[in-house]
Amino acid sequence: MAKKLWGGRFSKKTDPLVEEFTKSIQYDQKLAEYDVIGSIAHVDILEKCVLLTRKEANKLKKELMSILINIRNGLFKADLKNEDIHTYIQNLLQSKVGDLALKLHMARSRNDQVVFATKLYCKWAVVELINKEIKGLLDSIVGLASKNKNIIMPGFTHLQHAQPVLLVDYLGAYQKMLRRDILRLINISKDIKITLGSGALAGSPIEAVKYNVKVNEYIKQFGIGDVFNIEPTSNSLDSVSDRDFIIEIISALSIVAMHLSRLAEDLIIWSTKEFDFVEIDEAFCTGSSLMPQKKNPDALELIRGYAGRLYGNLVSVLTMMKGLPLTYNRDMQLDKEPLFNSFEIVSSELKVLAGLIKTLKFNEEKIKEHLEDESLYATDLVYYLVDRKIPFKEAHTIVGKLVKYSLDNDILIKNMPESLLKRFSNKIVKKEIVKLFDPLVSVKSKKSIKR
Amino acid sequence: MAKKLWGGRFSKKTDPLVEEFTKSIQYDQKLAEYDVIGSIAHVDILEKCVLLTRKEANKLKKELMSILINIRNGLFKADLKNEDIHTYIQNLLQSKVGDLALKLHMARSRNDQVVFATKLYCKWAVVELINKEIKGLLDSIVGLASKNKNIIMPGFTHLQHAQPVLLVDYLGAYQKMLRRDILRLINISKDIKITLGSGALAGSPIEAVKYNVKVNEYIKQFGIGDVFNIEPTSNSLDSVSDRDFIIEIISALSIVAMHLSRLAEDLIIWSTKEFDFVEIDEAFCTGSSLMPQKKNPDALELIRGYAGRLYGNLVSVLTMMKGLPLTYNRDMQLDKEPLFNSFEIVSSELKVLAGLIKTLKFNEEKIKEHLEDESLYATDLVYYLVDRKIPFKEAHTIVGKLVKYSLDNDILIKNMPESLLKRFSNKIVKKEIVKLFDPLVSVKSKKSIKR
Amino acid sequence: MAKKLWGGRFSKKTDPLVEEFTKSIQYDQKLAEYDVIGSIAHVDILEKCVLLTRKEANKLKKELMSILINIRNGLFKADLKNEDIHTYIQNLLQSKVGDLALKLHMARSRNDQVVFATKLYCKWAVVELINKEIKGLLDSIVGLASKNKNIIMPGFTHLQHAQPVLLVDYLGAYQKMLRRDILRLINISKDIKITLGSGALAGSPIEAVKYNVKVNEYIKQFGIGDVFNIEPTSNSLDSVSDRDFIIEIISALSIVAMHLSRLAEDLIIWSTKEFDFVEIDEAFCTGSSLMPQKKNPDALELIRGYAGRLYGNLVSVLTMMKGLPLTYNRDMQLDKEPLFNSFEIVSSELKVLAGLIKTLKFNEEKIKEHLEDESLYATDLVYYLVDRKIPFKEAHTIVGKLVKYSLDNDILIKNMPESLLKRFSNKIVKKEIVKLFDPLVSVKSKKSIKR
Amino acid sequence: MAKKLWGGRFSKKTDPLVEEFTKSIQYDQKLAEYDVIGSIAHVDILEKCVLLTRKEANKLKKELMSILINIRNGLFKADLKNEDIHTYIQNLLQSKVGDLALKLHMARSRNDQVVFATKLYCKWAVVELINKEIKGLLDSIVGLASKNKNIIMPGFTHLQHAQPVLLVDYLGAYQKMLRRDILRLINISKDIKITLGSGALAGSPIEAVKYNVKVNEYIKQFGIGDVFNIEPTSNSLDSVSDRDFIIEIISALSIVAMHLSRLAEDLIIWSTKEFDFVEIDEAFCTGSSLMPQKKNPDALELIRGYAGRLYGNLVSVLTMMKGLPLTYNRDMQLDKEPLFNSFEIVSSELKVLAGLIKTLKFNEEKIKEHLEDESLYATDLVYYLVDRKIPFKEAHTIVGKLVKYSLDNDILIKNMPESLLKRFSNKIVKKEIVKLFDPLVSVKSKKSIKR
Repeated sequence: MAKKLWGGRFSKKTDPLVEEFTKSIQYDQKLAEYDVIGSIAHVDILEKCVLLTRKEANKLKKELMSILINIRNGLFKADLKNEDIHTYIQNLLQSKVGDLALKLHMARSRNDQVVFATKLYCKWAVVELINKEIKGLLDSIVGLASKNKNIIMPGFTHLQHAQPVLLVDYLGAYQKMLRRDILRLINISKDIKITLGSGALAGSPIEAVKYNVKVNEYIKQFGIGDVFNIEPTSNSLDSVSDRDFIIEIISALSIVAMHLSRLAEDLIIWSTKEFDFVEIDEAFCTGSSLMPQKKNPDALELIRGYAGRLYGNLVSVLTMMKGLPLTYNRDMQLDKEPLFNSFEIVSSELKVLAGLIKTLKFNEEKIKEHLEDESLYATDLVYYLVDRKIPFKEAHTIVGKLVKYSLDNDILIKNMPESLLKRFSNKIVKKEIVKLFDPLVSVKSKKSIKR
Repeated sequence: MAKKLWGGRFSKKTDPLVEEFTKSIQYDQKLAEYDVIGSIAHVDILEKCVLLTRKEANKLKKELMSILINIRNGLFKADLKNEDIHTYIQNLLQSKVGDLALKLHMARSRNDQVVFATKLYCKWAVVELINKEIKGLLDSIVGLASKNKNIIMPGFTHLQHAQPVLLVDYLGAYQKMLRRDILRLINISKDIKITLGSGALAGSPIEAVKYNVKVNEYIKQFGIGDVFNIEPTSNSLDSVSDRDFIIEIISALSIVAMHLSRLAEDLIIWSTKEFDFVEIDEAFCTGSSLMPQKKNPDALELIRGYAGRLYGNLVSVLTMMKGLPLTYNRDMQLDKEPLFNSFEIVSSELKVLAGLIKTLKFNEEKIKEHLEDESLYATDLVYYLVDRKIPFKEAHTIVGKLVKYSLDNDILIKNMPESLLKRFSNKIVKKEIVKLFDPLVSVKSKKSIKR
Repeated sequence: MAKKLWGGRFSKKTDPLVEEFTKSIQYDQKLAEYDVIGSIAHVDILEKCVLLTRKEANKLKKELMSILINIRNGLFKADLKNEDIHTYIQNLLQSKVGDLALKLHMARSRNDQVVFATKLYCKWAVVELINKEIKGLLDSIVGLASKNKNIIMPGFTHLQHAQPVLLVDYLGAYQKMLRRDILRLINISKDIKITLGSGALAGSPIEAVKYNVKVNEYIKQFGIGDVFNIEPTSNSLDSVSDRDFIIEIISALSIVAMHLSRLAEDLIIWSTKEFDFVEIDEAFCTGSSLMPQKKNPDALELIRGYAGRLYGNLVSVLTMMKGLPLTYNRDMQLDKEPLFNSFEIVSSELKVLAGLIKTLKFNEEKIKEHLEDESLYATDLVYYLVDRKIPFKEAHTIVGKLVKYSLDNDILIKNMPESLLKRFSNKIVKKEIVKLFDPLVSVKSKKSIKR
Repeated sequence: MAKKLWGGRFSKKTDPLVEEFTKSIQYDQKLAEYDVIGSIAHVDILEKCVLLTRKEANKLKKELMSILINIRNGLFKADLKNEDIHTYIQNLLQSKVGDLALKLHMARSRNDQVVFATKLYCKWAVVELINKEIKGLLDSIVGLASKNKNIIMPGFTHLQHAQPVLLVDYLGAYQKMLRRDILRLINISKDIKITLGSGALAGSPIEAVKYNVKVNEYIKQFGIGDVFNIEPTSNSLDSVSDRDFIIEIISALSIVAMHLSRLAEDLIIWSTKEFDFVEIDEAFCTGSSLMPQKKNPDALELIRGYAGRLYGNLVSVLTMMKGLPLTYNRDMQLDKEPLFNSFEIVSSELKVLAGLIKTLKFNEEKIKEHLEDESLYATDLVYYLVDRKIPFKEAHTIVGKLVKYSLDNDILIKNMPESLLKRFSNKIVKKEIVKLFDPLVSVKSKKSIKR
């Protein structure tokens, strides 16, 4: 058992089971860096209030900076005997500067510390996810689209042939989703306010104005987002009991995961023997211990399945927050694992997909065969008739019957004699309509999309 | 069985079980108004393309406006034999203007119609919820706060006495939550793009530019949000398969419900015999069929419990969307009940709470008694010692021991002789510290909050 | 506002918003029948205790039986102005027998009444679901299997061709699932104890032994399950606050819905143009308002999507119960809509599927073509080599290379010259292995399944 | 990258990202023991089929037993470079016995191996949880009840005073819940069938009868449940794609967690300053880094909050299984973390609670004060009047008015003069009713509970 941040009032030791049960250091090390930044800011504030001398403040900041550098360089390893990362860093600091470290506790609470560090982590993690992973996948998709810009494929609704569409548009739909994801995450992130001064719930004796901190230039050089402003809290009870931002982020990540599950599903289906639209690179597939021929899209299946994990994380935090009386309750410690886990999963998914998409090959020949299905052009036939002044609904019925006749009698529409066609509508001119059974003609005839 | 929008290709009747199973008219009537607006816009578009003459367009618009007026006046009642509200309105229109109505089908798909109407509904419902319900509750809370602005009460963390706080700040925390809710909903709503021109998935033969519609002045007078712009879709495959906005809204409403569940919990606890902080008005309580003395906070309990319903709705839509291949699939029809239900529940909760809060009475005397608990001032004692140059951590330990001594020996700190107090720290001056056990002094000493 | 079961202590009217908000009669009418049965039993108990005379008891039972008959005959319609169905029935009874009805309140609480009726409903609904709907679908699957007992099809793992399997076994897997569902539901149902005597939470002054009721023969004739025994509660606090049985049932129904979503997915995929394994009867499909050729598997898609609704219902009740202090809290009223809704959805799904499966046609020719894929027999080749003393792992590698060669050089294994085959393993004898590329041979070689 | 169980068909290396992404060895080590048992059984089966000689079989079994002993003794540590635990054990075996290990692959698939090991783990984990943890908590509760068997306390509904109840019954309610939990888990566990012979999906060439294995005596000595029987699968497609048992277990564990969250909530409320019913031992509380007086019920709060984690795990697996086509898909690998995590959380919660309950102290004096609240006896007054022939409903109203009068005029009922009492009902005899305001009399008058 390591030193704790509390205990004067206690005459008994904590039960070891409880110690283990309440610990968070096994997962909250992700906050180390942000905790240190908060401490540096707190030192600044205490110095402003003359609760620390300039010399004391400098000594503390120097040590904190050195811890920060270690964290950044991967040289930091927390001792898991501590209750949480905040306690560990406090103890570490004390081991370096002695009892001066104890002054840091002044007007400060773990509630506030935890919220501060978690918010900073969120802002940082959102930026990382967008800039590295989401944009990475977007690049792959854009690259894939530009390599295959002439491919036309059957468009599906209800997984049934609908109308020919450009592959570029299929891929474009996923780009739209990812762009919405970016926008959503940015919106959430920018509304997260970084504050100090809440104390445990009631505020602190330090004046609000002292909490206006522009985070120092030497922080900036570590690249933790932009230089950001710390403000005093505007409602300390709310500040320590608010976890909206975590729910919002996991919800937004759940939507990302849902989008990726759809992309995965499309690719899984397209890579079946029956569809055979795409070839997934071997490096992104796995085999079977029993069946030697197998090349399975395991990575895509996991991406599909992980959507459930994200939803579970969301339910987990929402349920935890349900009906909690104000202000802080320890239940709220359970926000972190789902949060961190959600970022990790989505980040891995995006990276794997970026690689998989980059190496994806479309089987143009096979896709072309599927485009021979005349039913894909049925709507174009309807428009043809509408152009010839048949009301849409009537044209729809005519073509419906034509399609049915074609299927029932196993004869292609373009092979029907003109006389037969005329029986469905005398507006049909065979030499005109045969031209409609052409994917390029079909795609070009759709002019409503402002790309 | 009413007329359908499709069927030429079918030689068999739909099985009645399937007809019943696939119907949505029992719940999608909420979209009636927005479907009609979409139809009016579509008429405009067809007229621009000379697919309708000016005369035809006017005839159609006149009838559509008259349907719209009926809907608005509560005179509209859909025939539940129809598959959905869109089919019903189409059939109704045909019954008024005859086959001219059939021309409306031109270049239009239900996929696009449904998304259009649902988005419009969302924008409208968000505005209503904010302006009527959320702001209504905010007003009640503000009113309650101003009636009780001098009340100081024990602040809680872990449901244990922490420090004295102003009731106004407790109530202020809920105001913060609701204001975040408003901001969140507005952000979501403004990012919903109202488009037309997607067709079923592949777009339509009408040029994109024709879809730029400024919704007419005569719509404006019906007060459906602001005059809004319809744009052509920028990716038709995405437009018909996107339900992000529904998930975002239910997620935001889940957060509202979570906030309300916390307020409900606080009030339930505060109205127990043991706490006795508040008196809930009889009009907002119910009794027991067995126990005649009972006055139960049922409304608050339902509000607490309904959070679960909202979370369930969120899970329902998220799960439904998981792994759906592009583009539209019928599963997506199942977005509507959870969406509508979520708005209804949250709206009722807000209304009930607004009334309950307005009539809530605080039991000032009782609260005052609870403030006599000395432990509430322990942190102030720590700050007192810190002011006398004892490092925070040490001061914390001193006061911890003092509190423990007080409890173990059943003696109030303020009743301890000075000599005894000095044993804990010789910096303690009895006549100074007794002044600290005063809620007003305690609250005033917290200067960190920028209200 | 109708008469309430409580109110003496109240001087104010309930706020109309609260009245509306706390009402359950719009959905709890499903309990009418079970509430009446409970009342009949309660009359018996009061008579045993001489709290009712024989004559009074008979009069009450006669009226209650007549209400029961009306409910059973669909002639019962509750007045929605009442708070809940229990209040309505009480008021109805009073309108028939006058103040004698008031005696029924003796030693009874709504808490107990609600739990009693809900448990009885569950037992009944489980029996109905199993006997009518689940067995109905099982029959359809068995029928389909027996019509197609010779069909062999490609078996899939990861949606990739794996090995040939009997269609009968594919269908058999779904039978297994449904049989587990039945067993699970029966287990849950039989562990639901039907008790009376809990009062609101503390029990009643009536001796436990009086609550041992064998539900009367005249109840039996209404076919409400078997004659069942009512017992006195063994812990009244638990009885009124237990909702385990509801969670268990919704969980079991969620598993049913999950199974059906998988069956739906298989059929959706099998009915694509690309797979073309099955033909879904037109009566179970729907069309498109835009694309005349469409025949969409909408019913199956809704079945897939409804799984989400079930999961949502489960989350809803679980969350509602989280952290509720003992004993009864009004939150628990929110168990009913998810419960009823879950039964309704699953019941409809089963009915629709039973019909769809009954009329499903397998496209034997098309399936046969897919069986020509040599990779389906790769594992059989491995076993062939193992029989010739090559260790499994080595055989696996040999066949893996053979398959790869075949793909890379676009040559079928069975078309390779013996000399080429020998290069992969000299144990390969061409005339022997060509016989392996036969679905029937493959299927027959699997002897490990005890059907 | 370690050796894989597949790969002959592949010419490229797996992408390192994919390797990392698809790995499960970081969590599936829990299955090591059960995987080895499965391998021992498989050796037996191969020996029966003369696919292994007696000597080979013995050599393999000897090595496998030695691995098993290491696992059991905590001397086993998997090399995380392997894909999963099954691969690692296979490679380990090969390092000991050379290529003989390769023969073990015969007629075996990882699909089958994984399901086998997971089922065995589940059976074992259920037994452990019941015997150690649930029964441990039950013992603590029984102990606490027997130490406090005379305590009567206010019973609550809606968190409002209802009627006096025995503390023993409050605690008894939780015993009932835990006993239902045990029964539920046992039911689930006993319906899990341990089978072999499914192959990847299509079965194996080994005859079904050979799979009838009674697990050997030398396994028994390791105490892995009872000696159990392995059977041949009755539907191999179902066996490899069934995860019902995992959902059922997580659902049952979610109900356990829900029960514990309720117990936690009761204790959190009871240990507030305002209730002050119980004293939680210091060893089970934690303090605050800011507020020295704090003794917070953190362990209980985490228990309350963890319910959300369990629900999240349930949603995660349910969602993952939704709409998966038959048979095995890699998504299903995502069942394990939620399963293991659910057992771990519930197990910790039970252990912590067992200790906390054991050391819990009831504040009898304080509870007695709360029992002075006359409203707790209102229902007894009603029964008093009913005994004097006033119909229940009327008696309820009389007492309701009496209670109201008492509150409005701030006079205790027992202090009212007889004349005043008679105004409410002339059946009231003061000297009789004053005896009713006695917790013991109240509790004894409830005779309906069959304990």
